[in-house]
Amino acid sequence: MSSIVEAGALSGLSADPKVPAKGAIDPEIEKLAVNTVRVLGADLTQAFKGGHPGTVMGAAAIGVALWRYQMRYNPKNPDWFNRDRFVLSAGHACLWQYIHLHLAGYDAWTIDALKQYHNPDFGIAAGHPEIEFPGIELTTGLLGQGVANALGLAIASKNLAATYNKPSYPVVDNKIWCFVGDGCLQEGVGQEALSLAGHLRLDNLIVIYDDNSVTVDGSIATCFTDDTSAKVKAMGFNVLEVYDGTNDLTAIIKAMDEAKATRGKPSFIHIRTIIGFGSRKQNTGAAHGAALGEDEVSYVKQLFGFDPAKRFVIPDGVYDYFHPVIQRGADDEAAWNAMFAQYAKEHPAEHAELTQRLTGTLPDGWKNDLPPKGALPTSAQATRKSSGIAVQALVPKYKHFIAGSADLMESTFVNFKGQVEFQSPDTGFGDYSGRQLRYGIREFAMVGAANGMNAYQNGMIIPICSSYLAFWQYAMSACRLGALMGVRFIGLGTHDSIGVGEDGPTHQSVALAAFFRALPNFNLIRPADAEEVLGAWEVALDAQHTPTLMTLSRQGVPLLEHSDRAKVHNGAYPIFANYDERTADPELVLIATGSEVWRAVEAAKKLAPLRTRVVSMPIQSVFDRQPAEYRRVTLATGKALVVAIEPWASYGWARYAHASMSLHTFGLSAPQETLYELFGYGIDTIVEKVSKFVESKRVDGKIVLPGVGEFEELLLGYAKKHAGPELELH
Amino acid sequence: MSSIVEAGALSGLSADPKVPAKGAIDPEIEKLAVNTVRVLGADLTQAFKGGHPGTVMGAAAIGVALWRYQMRYNPKNPDWFNRDRFVLSAGHACLWQYIHLHLAGYDAWTIDALKQYHNPDFGIAAGHPEIEFPGIELTTGLLGQGVANALGLAIASKNLAATYNKPSYPVVDNKIWCFVGDGCLQEGVGQEALSLAGHLRLDNLIVIYDDNSVTVDGSIATCFTDDTSAKVKAMGFNVLEVYDGTNDLTAIIKAMDEAKATRGKPSFIHIRTIIGFGSRKQNTGAAHGAALGEDEVSYVKQLFGFDPAKRFVIPDGVYDYFHPVIQRGADDEAAWNAMFAQYAKEHPAEHAELTQRLTGTLPDGWKNDLPPKGALPTSAQATRKSSGIAVQALVPKYKHFIAGSADLMESTFVNFKGQVEFQSPDTGFGDYSGRQLRYGIREFAMVGAANGMNAYQNGMIIPICSSYLAFWQYAMSACRLGALMGVRFIGLGTHDSIGVGEDGPTHQSVALAAFFRALPNFNLIRPADAEEVLGAWEVALDAQHTPTLMTLSRQGVPLLEHSDRAKVHNGAYPIFANYDERTADPELVLIATGSEVWRAVEAAKKLAPLRTRVVSMPIQSVFDRQPAEYRRVTLATGKALVVAIEPWASYGWARYAHASMSLHTFGLSAPQETLYELFGYGIDTIVEKVSKFVESKRVDGKIVLPGVGEFEELLLGYAKKHAGPELELH
Repeated sequence: MSSIVEAGALSGLSADPKVPAKGAIDPEIEKLAVNTVRVLGADLTQAFKGGHPGTVMGAAAIGVALWRYQMRYNPKNPDWFNRDRFVLSAGHACLWQYIHLHLAGYDAWTIDALKQYHNPDFGIAAGHPEIEFPGIELTTGLLGQGVANALGLAIASKNLAATYNKPSYPVVDNKIWCFVGDGCLQEGVGQEALSLAGHLRLDNLIVIYDDNSVTVDGSIATCFTDDTSAKVKAMGFNVLEVYDGTNDLTAIIKAMDEAKATRGKPSFIHIRTIIGFGSRKQNTGAAHGAALGEDEVSYVKQLFGFDPAKRFVIPDGVYDYFHPVIQRGADDEAAWNAMFAQYAKEHPAEHAELTQRLTGTLPDGWKNDLPPKGALPTSAQATRKSSGIAVQALVPKYKHFIAGSADLMESTFVNFKGQVEFQSPDTGFGDYSGRQLRYGIREFAMVGAANGMNAYQNGMIIPICSSYLAFWQYAMSACRLGALMGVRFIGLGTHDSIGVGEDGPTHQSVALAAFFRALPNFNLIRPADAEEVLGAWEVALDAQHTPTLMTLSRQGVPLLEHSDRAKVHNGAYPIFANYDERTADPELVLIATGSEVWRAVEAAKKLAPLRTRVVSMPIQSVFDRQPAEYRRVTLATGKALVVAIEPWASYGWARYAHASMSLHTFGLSAPQETLYELFGYGIDTIVEKVSKFVESKRVDGKIVLPGVGEFEELLLGYAKKHAGPELELH
Repeated sequence: MSSIVEAGALSGLSADPKVPAKGAIDPEIEKLAVNTVRVLGADLTQAFKGGHPGTVMGAAAIGVALWRYQMRYNPKNPDWFNRDRFVLSAGHACLWQYIHLHLAGYDAWTIDALKQYHNPDFGIAAGHPEIEFPGIELTTGLLGQGVANALGLAIASKNLAATYNKPSYPVVDNKIWCFVGDGCLQEGVGQEALSLAGHLRLDNLIVIYDDNSVTVDGSIATCFTDDTSAKVKAMGFNVLEVYDGTNDLTAIIKAMDEAKATRGKPSFIHIRTIIGFGSRKQNTGAAHGAALGEDEVSYVKQLFGFDPAKRFVIPDGVYDYFHPVIQRGADDEAAWNAMFAQYAKEHPAEHAELTQRLTGTLPDGWKNDLPPKGALPTSAQATRKSSGIAVQALVPKYKHFIAGSADLMESTFVNFKGQVEFQSPDTGFGDYSGRQLRYGIREFAMVGAANGMNAYQNGMIIPICSSYLAFWQYAMSACRLGALMGVRFIGLGTHDSIGVGEDGPTHQSVALAAFFRALPNFNLIRPADAEEVLGAWEVALDAQHTPTLMTLSRQGVPLLEHSDRAKVHNGAYPIFANYDERTADPELVLIATGSEVWRAVEAAKKLAPLRTRVVSMPIQSVFDRQPAEYRRVTLATGKALVVAIEPWASYGWARYAHASMSLHTFGLSAPQETLYELFGYGIDTIVEKVSKFVESKRVDGKIVLPGVGEFEELLLGYAKKHAGPELELH
């Protein structure tokens, strides 16, 4: 063997009595196990001619420390409730995780499963970890977000522990481990999450930093020179250092022991490793994201004493070395099960509640907790305030909810009666049983944490996240990952249009909804009044595997006569007609959403005798999934002109409408009523514009419907003239 | 006066000889000036009954230090080239800035202009600072982004200085000031920007932290407990502390002097202030974002010795105190102008180049630098690689460009011949004249910095930013602000579809384009081959006030026979027909974009004898702005069935097409060719699906076009089954 290996020798690893091994372990076997991980990584990436060998080889000892010594889990029941959670924020290093899941004895993670890494067979060894597969807690790979996910898991664990643990019954006492690379620490979302974890003093969270000083583009020294340990310490972490994480398994285990024993702070273990260790490409970008090449794989095998002619070899003794974790996991779970059975007897109410929550749903009948339409205020009320009705009705009663905000608790009406803040009890601000969460001004970490909370165990926690709609833009990637994973959060995006008024165009979203409407498995809901707001909450809570963002108004809107929460479940429905619909089809359908529906209704009244129907369309994507006949009847397809009214970009409306009254510039800073008039959403302007459009489509008195490709934007004469020539009207 | 004021007394402020005042200043006048700012803030917010008085009152002394003593600028020529730049990252505090612009003598910022704060008159005192108005460098208000903007300005200044300064000719030697609040430091983008600024050792950047410990929701202690000074120091800043920033003007000025003199590091001045100082609401969230109330305004006036009966008062002596800055600014600019005139003689080439760049355009004839179609490789080539042709042709030659990447320099082909890295010369990695920029894994800060660079002076720097398309999601809010401001950057989003292959669904964007296509004043361009890529570069470089994002393929695509860069300027154009188009209208139009255009062409060949045209539509928004006749003719509107083919969400295609072959789930991890087949983009599958659709529309042999509201998605049988029930096909 070469001096490279000798220099960082693994000898004497288990001399440290703290290593929690059963009996004495041959240090040669430990060394062999670590090298087996490395060689497997080189083999599997070479077999596919792609993927990421670097971390597998550099961080092999960290993996052995985690899966062989430190983490509590049952490989034969990956979903055991009180397991430790592991999040691979550096998702591209998934092969490193997969190999350890194999060695630890997860049934699904066979050698054949590993061989499917990146392959066309659509096995479980995907190019980044995916939540669907055993041993994977969340889908990761978009850097930094895993830290926020882990934060969410740590919040979940602390909250459940504070809620359900009783003397002698530590129902929840696990750890949350998060493995990060340089990328996760450069990304803003990772930093937001660390800062909040430090503030919350989450001592169940252990972040492992694989500091290999190399990224895709080469040496980290060319772009990232933070003193990371000092920085993370300044964010409230207990920082531990391991100087030779490539080979010093003992030091890694010791640091993890210290992290597990730390109280009152999360821990950050800063571990230096050599990327691609064992290859002549080690310590370079070349080892990061490409197979090493046949020659190099042979070299690595020879270096580590493996036969270059053989692939995918697990040498004798390596499984034996790992497999005590199977018995340990079974024992741990059995002990917990026994304890939990006794807990059922001693604390039946808590046991029943926890068991109900594990279904991932609210108890039957929860919809009855929402006030009926007749009990809703009839005076004009902002839909953000109406959402508060649902918050007050549901959140205090059901512990499933953790309601938080990115520094806009009151403005988004998520503060609820009897709230206790989720805070470290040491601070005097609350305790960990609290379900009111101050995320600070960290929207991206908020939604990333929400994904983590909901993923904790079968959706037993339903996070509520809130901010101004404009700031949801910061969190769009976390929304997308939530949709991809099929987790659920309830997002509230208030001040959702030019109705925000004076704050001006930076705060007036015009294009954001297009993204959320296009996103698969996501509910973008824009309710028209208090009744539809309650319908939106119903939709959100019926959809167990879909995240929701409700966009809500700052300004008041009236309670509409025919608004109907039950019909919100259809995505869209007729809400008004200015004539007796039994007598004839409409000539015109106005589709409106949210705070503009009442304006459409008022305009329709004035448009008589033109037979006009108003359709409220709070959820486009849900409407698209209705039966074709329902859609045709609702929109009077082929019979009426259809005009959409919404103070956002027109994008997407051509699917339903022949024309739209939309914004095609950004907004402006002025009081909201002024803006509504200016941008053409005054009732009289709507009537005028729509009438003109209808008349333009008459041929010999009869309306001729435009075809596909003839969509019109009924624009006003106003554009924000100083925002570049592209914005001028034409 | 109350003890509150006495305790933080302003007495003796100008005893410090470092205060760069002309002659001795009466300390009472200084105190009066600071209090005038406070009272004006209270008055103006009260007049509007809204807005943000807290920072105006708490940070008044910081403002006086900046505009009266520290910043170099000419109020009579706000656009003077060598002025210091000031960015208000905490944009909600704009009234604080506006008041100082008034006191400093900016012509536009009259008292009447201030009175329009938040008012319906659409004056210049908008609710957040807007780039269009004198003295405002960038539009801010979405927290944290101002730090990235300031980073961009500091990069721009350093780069221009390193490029154009000569001995005795410091053409560029200004400072960049950035004012931040707690929010900016909690937001990830702010932390990304600070980290990169520290790495780059930008000693022309001075960040001022107004630490008032209060946010909208109240005490910062409930959500943000970083040791900010230690953290920012760990990011490479020189950190300076001011303990009484409310009143100790001398200490503020001294810290700013130190910051200006610091070499080799950016500076961070941590200044504690009392929000709403002088009001009984001081130091609480109540002083943050609401008018104080009449009683309270009276109280403040009495406290500071003002007459409660009078509003908007500038006491005698206050203008006299401020107005020396007018002469100083005029003198500074005159001296610079004289120096620059001499520079024109001594360094005519540099002078000419700099002067040309100040037009914000490339020199005439730059399009000739791009190779003609005949010189492009005919073998299959990834469009990301084709974009590299433009990079190599333009970037080395024109210093306008600064080409960078978020750690994907090679993969996005922005590394160019003869590159010098933009790095501190102390590091040995490059120097500040370099135009190759390593942003690190910080996409949001990258685009925020790009906005700042382009806004530096009339668009004289054109930043190129690159990452995988999936990571552009992190930067969407900065893209939106770029569009709103009318600045220009050229974004490259590579690996833009399921063609990314093995990395799997996290890296396969399906909904992102909908946002960018809906966004006003933004070019989302998806070119089909190398020729269209060059057309995309032309469009991007012709649009001086519009940002561009090109989405580019990882996988190779052939050079198409009829692709035409000139026609990319139309947004869409016919690129193939399988029959002689002079003889008849098409029966079918296939619209495709990017890497699917060649697939549509191959499918069209097989669809004969069905008369089929293929339209390439690289830019929807530009196509929408073409004359109606061009659009009708291109899509054969009303004559042919139209089917769109694109491996993204269908959202938006109903404007042009009767049906689409789109993704309505997320992608998968497998080789790209496998995925193309699986998701139905194999040539034969396209032919089969489209044929079936066409046949379904025949009535008595004749095709009947579906109407609006009848859009169909020609879906394949495959959905990612583990991503929640909402994703199942129906």
